Amino acid sequence: MACNEFYQYSLALSLMDGVADKGLPISEYLKHGDHGIGTFRYINGEMIVLDGKAFQMLSDGSIVELDPTGDAIHPFAQITRFQPEVTAKAAIPSKESLGDIVSGLVPGSKNHCLAMRLDGVFKTVTVRTAGGQTEPRQSLLEIGKNQVSFTFENVRGTLIGFRQPHYLQGIGVAADHLHFITEDRTRGGHVLALESDGEIDVQAAQMYTMHLELPKGDEEFNEAPLVGNHKDLESVEG
Amino acid sequence: MACNEFYQYSLALSLMDGVADKGLPISEYLKHGDHGIGTFRYINGEMIVLDGKAFQMLSDGSIVELDPTGDAIHPFAQITRFQPEVTAKAAIPSKESLGDIVSGLVPGSKNHCLAMRLDGVFKTVTVRTAGGQTEPRQSLLEIGKNQVSFTFENVRGTLIGFRQPHYLQGIGVAADHLHFITEDRTRGGHVLALESDGEIDVQAAQMYTMHLELPKGDEEFNEAPLVGNHKDLESVEG
Repeated sequence: MACNEFYQYSLALSLMDGVADKGLPISEYLKHGDHGIGTFRYINGEMIVLDGKAFQMLSDGSIVELDPTGDAIHPFAQITRFQPEVTAKAAIPSKESLGDIVSGLVPGSKNHCLAMRLDGVFKTVTVRTAGGQTEPRQSLLEIGKNQVSFTFENVRGTLIGFRQPHYLQGIGVAADHLHFITEDRTRGGHVLALESDGEIDVQAAQMYTMHLELPKGDEEFNEAPLVGNHKDLESVEG
Repeated sequence: MACNEFYQYSLALSLMDGVADKGLPISEYLKHGDHGIGTFRYINGEMIVLDGKAFQMLSDGSIVELDPTGDAIHPFAQITRFQPEVTAKAAIPSKESLGDIVSGLVPGSKNHCLAMRLDGVFKTVTVRTAGGQTEPRQSLLEIGKNQVSFTFENVRGTLIGFRQPHYLQGIGVAADHLHFITEDRTRGGHVLALESDGEIDVQAAQMYTMHLELPKGDEEFNEAPLVGNHKDLESVEG
């Protein structure tokens, strides 16, 4: 796969429906890039891939660096071979403001997918980490109700993620979807809020080609409704 | 691209928004397969690709076989390298019944894309052929209001097309989307209705990988709303 092509396995809608028993092996996933996010079997934690290294961030606050040939399975995952088109320094006052700031750096990107990376010192980063299904087919919305969030203060680290346009909501996650990891790779999670401490490094690239791979031979996927409403998805992944 | 991977250029939503000034050159398009459908610059006619040969079906009833290295441009197009997984003989009493018949032949396909081909003698096939934009950015819905339909009777020919699941409505076209061409390659169009004359040959294959390529450097695409409602899309492409 060429640089800045976007690979996605399965659908945000199927995670919403709790389809998380099977998935893509990590060895297959990492063939498609070096910059990504995703989740694990039974939605147990958050994944971040930066510079080709993959980490599992668990709800107890621990982090595991993953064996790229190991047995991790991803029921939902996104990745690209990231080559920044834009590199800038910017202050990010909030997660909500990130969209406009990045749109300013990458004009004409409203209807395209973007890969993003932010590096620097953050005044605050609030994350949540999915604690996993407590019963089969438990939906992401149900898991989200029990999620624990944590706010890091004055922390140096990296945010990795993607923006997908509105029309891909449900296929993926519309708007900015980012995971965070600290510089020492000991903590992180799915980003709920952030505020930079002065200017940080912002890198972004548009992605014009999306490779969407759907589960093969997965009865749960085949039978899932896949009609979850967008508000539910925004409430857990937005 | 491997057999039965699905390649799509641009979005049904952007055609709805009348984005049809630029597109994918036919030489690029045909690299991705031998079985496809699509449209042309300014939505001028219907395209069908069978056995690797591409045809433009115009609203005056004429058909042109396209030069694979020529200057045809496709603002929206879908294609696969078709390798049927299922081959059967079936009577098709109506377009509406086709979905259930094909689902019966390809179990577990509700949430997947399918490529389809029907060959045989049809009691009736009703088609329409888009007459093209009469002004820039005219929407597919507006063009559809002026469409002329034509019913062939006792005609031998081929239907080529795809089914996309509900969650891809807007990205592509949910439900069965088929184009027809007569055996002598002199007439055809977008299929609105059909009834087979006894049993015909039905071929189908599931597609688990979708390659979605979006327009690069197309200001009209970049600025389009891309939020068209599903009922409008069903009314013109369903």
